[in-house]
Amino acid sequence: MSPRTITILGATGSVGRSTLDLVGRNRDRYEVVALTAHKDVAGLAALARDFGARVAVIGDPALLGALEDALARTGIEAAAGEAAIEAAAASGAEWTMAAIVGTAGLKPVMRALEGGGTVALANKEALVSAGALMTEAARASGATLLPVDSEHNAVFQCFDRARPESVRRIILTASGGPFRTWPLERMRAANAAQAVAHPNWSMGAKISVDCATLMNKGLELIEAFHLFPVGADAIEIVVHPQSVIHSLIEYVDGSVLAQLGPADMRVPIAYTLAWPERMETPCERLDLVAIASLDFEAPDLVRFPALGLARQALSQGGAKPAILNAANEIAVASFLESRVAFLDIASVVGAVLDRYDPPAPASIDAVLEIDREARRVAAEVTGKIRN
Amino acid sequence: MSPRTITILGATGSVGRSTLDLVGRNRDRYEVVALTAHKDVAGLAALARDFGARVAVIGDPALLGALEDALARTGIEAAAGEAAIEAAAASGAEWTMAAIVGTAGLKPVMRALEGGGTVALANKEALVSAGALMTEAARASGATLLPVDSEHNAVFQCFDRARPESVRRIILTASGGPFRTWPLERMRAANAAQAVAHPNWSMGAKISVDCATLMNKGLELIEAFHLFPVGADAIEIVVHPQSVIHSLIEYVDGSVLAQLGPADMRVPIAYTLAWPERMETPCERLDLVAIASLDFEAPDLVRFPALGLARQALSQGGAKPAILNAANEIAVASFLESRVAFLDIASVVGAVLDRYDPPAPASIDAVLEIDREARRVAAEVTGKIRN
Repeated sequence: MSPRTITILGATGSVGRSTLDLVGRNRDRYEVVALTAHKDVAGLAALARDFGARVAVIGDPALLGALEDALARTGIEAAAGEAAIEAAAASGAEWTMAAIVGTAGLKPVMRALEGGGTVALANKEALVSAGALMTEAARASGATLLPVDSEHNAVFQCFDRARPESVRRIILTASGGPFRTWPLERMRAANAAQAVAHPNWSMGAKISVDCATLMNKGLELIEAFHLFPVGADAIEIVVHPQSVIHSLIEYVDGSVLAQLGPADMRVPIAYTLAWPERMETPCERLDLVAIASLDFEAPDLVRFPALGLARQALSQGGAKPAILNAANEIAVASFLESRVAFLDIASVVGAVLDRYDPPAPASIDAVLEIDREARRVAAEVTGKIRN
Repeated sequence: MSPRTITILGATGSVGRSTLDLVGRNRDRYEVVALTAHKDVAGLAALARDFGARVAVIGDPALLGALEDALARTGIEAAAGEAAIEAAAASGAEWTMAAIVGTAGLKPVMRALEGGGTVALANKEALVSAGALMTEAARASGATLLPVDSEHNAVFQCFDRARPESVRRIILTASGGPFRTWPLERMRAANAAQAVAHPNWSMGAKISVDCATLMNKGLELIEAFHLFPVGADAIEIVVHPQSVIHSLIEYVDGSVLAQLGPADMRVPIAYTLAWPERMETPCERLDLVAIASLDFEAPDLVRFPALGLARQALSQGGAKPAILNAANEIAVASFLESRVAFLDIASVVGAVLDRYDPPAPASIDAVLEIDREARRVAAEVTGKIRN
């Protein structure tokens, strides 16, 4: 079997490095076409050399010279800038990891989907802000979209794609975050350090706050809606503090299938890399006896209004999910800078959803425009809350 | 789509009635060829009339006249005796439920497998006592064997049959039975009423005692070995008191897939009836929030020596699993009659496994002969223990 050609968009981040860790254990099975990074020239050059990439692309055009120097006499092509990253995404690799964070990832994801290969999707914004456009592009090109996020990857593993009508509901699990058991009064005074203390996964500050508000689960609800043809009402959320069961599917016969695993992103990444086969990983084995207990409880929509906002944005559709995401980013950033309180995050998002109502975006450029405007409105709203 | 022809061996028992409950909700999709029962003439005749069976067969030849009377002027053919039950099993139905209890089910299961259709297997002895013969017959005829037992059905739902090499281990769950937390001293004095008080499922006395000794899980280990090509060492047992997760599969990438469900046998039966599709059932939905907690612990091989005996019988192979099963039936019957103590059950089985060592059976008749002789030896051993 000839090696599979792969491209990694966002190679120097956590998901990119985990992907290359797995590729490095199976070098004969993969051939690296392109690796991209935002600003980490040294990291990108080292990975490109190690894996014999054909092309290395740095996002910041000012860093092209540095990248060229770092790749001198390697034969690896150096490139820089947004257009070059899009070109890397469109390079025709059989498999592409889309792990660029934020709206910067939208156009590269679109290019990869238009290419018709297999796209492992780790960028949340692609489906939250531009779900209809992305899934339509995949349908048109015949691209296969494999979710990397542990919850959606779990659903994908359990979902009978040949018989979507046999699925009764999808149950996404949520850790509940650090404030799961906090009374509302205490949450009111929660600070950034408390919010980023995620119980099960080690993550960046922004996504940790999203876990604390449960907005992360709200965004995942929207992603699941675009990935799996069951309808929003058939997607439920249950709080499961241990995060061992990554998600579940109930079938019409009453059977529930679940995927469980260790807290290691290499498990879902390996699934997307090897799909439809499986590959060995060095991940810790799940030890149910050591875990001892898996708990479940209903999410509290009063203490965690972000869930309701996400459901509202999904049911309104159009531009609303993109606005939800953009407003949330601004609100979380303000919270991390101690400019607004924890409970203000959802209030800001709700206010922006109410105030800004553009038509549904028909292109990625339109999504980016909505994203910018929603951030501007959110900054305005945030500024007024600020004490 | 023309209706699927089905035959139910053991129609008046719990599994048979649950099967017909589901068939009754989908009458246009199934056509009943034959129904069989052991002695319940009235029950059999009523089901045969209700479902318009072509043939009804009663096991006891002395009851033929009564069955003929009960089916007078219905056009339903009445038959009786072992040979007639085997003929019903060989009637060429596309789908057969093999739910005759005990070794009486062996020949009918074999006839159904030789027919090459789909066989839903609820008879434990078929794989425990004659696993190699049964799976060889299925291979030769191209029959599809679908396990009905909730644990094996769970494994079947999660097992990637196209890629057995990607499975690292199978984890069968055990409720732990009513003596899960009892110290050995207390178990020594356990009586029949205590042993049949199963925490999660309502079952017959014999299988309830098997749950209390964990011999049931030992027998299921042997069945799993024959159903799934992973090797005995790759099949583990974990105690899970709530019995909500029916079993799990770990893949080489670290992903664990599990099937969960309500304690209703119609869920796995429906899976086998509709496979590879799914059918709606009226079963209660699984409510994780109401369940609240799923617990796990390692089985205690000292307090539950039956597990070790089953593993030993499986690794010795040949006639040993059939001996294990037969000796256990005699020992459990003696315990239910208060003639031996609870902990004697495993001692009897162990002694019979040590004392009786015939060659591997080459036919179902040879299995039945081993079964009879093992019962005789077990009765002898039991008689000596008796106080």
